[in-house]
Amino acid sequence: MSRNLKITLAYDGSEFHGWQIQPGLRTVQGTLAECLQRLTGEEVLPQGSGRTDAGVHAWAQVASVRLESPIPERNLVIALNDVLPASVRVNGVEVVADDFHARHSAKAKTYRYRIYRKDICPPFLVRYVFHDPYPMNEEALIRASEHIVGKHDFTSFAASDPERSARMAEGREAEASHFGITTNVRTIHFSQWMRTGEELVYTVRGDGFLHHMVRNLVGTFLQVGRGALQIEDVSAILDACNRSAAGPTAAACGLYLVSVEY
Amino acid sequence: MSRNLKITLAYDGSEFHGWQIQPGLRTVQGTLAECLQRLTGEEVLPQGSGRTDAGVHAWAQVASVRLESPIPERNLVIALNDVLPASVRVNGVEVVADDFHARHSAKAKTYRYRIYRKDICPPFLVRYVFHDPYPMNEEALIRASEHIVGKHDFTSFAASDPERSARMAEGREAEASHFGITTNVRTIHFSQWMRTGEELVYTVRGDGFLHHMVRNLVGTFLQVGRGALQIEDVSAILDACNRSAAGPTAAACGLYLVSVEY
Repeated sequence: MSRNLKITLAYDGSEFHGWQIQPGLRTVQGTLAECLQRLTGEEVLPQGSGRTDAGVHAWAQVASVRLESPIPERNLVIALNDVLPASVRVNGVEVVADDFHARHSAKAKTYRYRIYRKDICPPFLVRYVFHDPYPMNEEALIRASEHIVGKHDFTSFAASDPERSARMAEGREAEASHFGITTNVRTIHFSQWMRTGEELVYTVRGDGFLHHMVRNLVGTFLQVGRGALQIEDVSAILDACNRSAAGPTAAACGLYLVSVEY
Repeated sequence: MSRNLKITLAYDGSEFHGWQIQPGLRTVQGTLAECLQRLTGEEVLPQGSGRTDAGVHAWAQVASVRLESPIPERNLVIALNDVLPASVRVNGVEVVADDFHARHSAKAKTYRYRIYRKDICPPFLVRYVFHDPYPMNEEALIRASEHIVGKHDFTSFAASDPERSARMAEGREAEASHFGITTNVRTIHFSQWMRTGEELVYTVRGDGFLHHMVRNLVGTFLQVGRGALQIEDVSAILDACNRSAAGPTAAACGLYLVSVEY
């Protein structure tokens, strides 16, 4: 009898072309699928809680997959870490209910963004932070981030999403609707920058995130920090429901998927 | 009039085939020389305080180089960091006396070695620590390291050094002697392991180190931690003056050149 498994994994995004499997490219989903096949002989495609883009890291991405193999969960953790590259680590495997799906069942997610502020970025940090040593009104940046807490239409902070367009074009509106992607309304529970040592670290928790949403929020907050936007402009940008109103997309290397709640 | 410059630099050793220039390989010395030439037009070979092997990191390697270019030191820092890969960062440039030589003038060096102890090594640490999650008597490891403090012949912990053999064969005994490499006697001022979070961190400071010496010391201490050697064996290994008496060479990725004193 097959079991539905929840796999929690960390990865160094700089080693991959993102989460989603793509022919001829090294992706996390593709690498995990290959290793599962190598261990069990089963051809499966683990479903992630969401895609992460090339360069984006994960402390605890969650994937779900159905396997026939009776291998005990603890052994699967060890066996996967034996065959996976060191840039991906499985931190846990557990058996979950049949209707658990890493993406559909997710109730909240937390992301983090790290900015390194000193003039010279240590070589050991360069893949793991965004280096921004330029003058910044950090107090304004911190205050701007408070304006997005609550339930809002985040269209201004959403990338135009080719996959969504494709799904709509295929007449899969019902599926799209089931996935909750026909609306750009999301609820943000927590949004805060903190100074920790030489870094500015942003933590955001919400019931869901649009494609590029965290990076577009960070890009906009940075515009406030640099004085190109005012703190109160953030609310106006939200109201505009127009991507061109917001700041540019911040670099991928500073972003971490920290946790997914179910 | 040319100036003698002292360059302090950090690098991620996993991106290089060590410090020393080698044809067709990416080395730190070679990369720094190329960048200096690109900026000044001068063909120079910066001399390091010592070679670091492939995979060994540096927080503050020191190099000395003579340049004709009148570029101010602060500007040279900025210009070098513009052209160097992000895996090498120049943290300082200063004008020094004509007789300063990064290797010959060095009075003491400090190295650090990081061991990660938990079962699963985070992907973000894997290039920067040695992962050893196996059972270990950490107290024995810590106590073993105290036995090497003082002035000793470290032949048991020295790699057989092809460069030294080559220099001797070329009849350059006087030069070899001037460099202090005809003797394997070194003085260790400080040698201590500390538990910091999930890591065991070794710090060693001495007036000089033989090739592979820190990694061979660490490999030997690990044998004590694993119970393959006793604490008191360390003194006997020192006395043996025989490389085969000591433990294996520990992995490069855990080792950092932390500072060089003049």
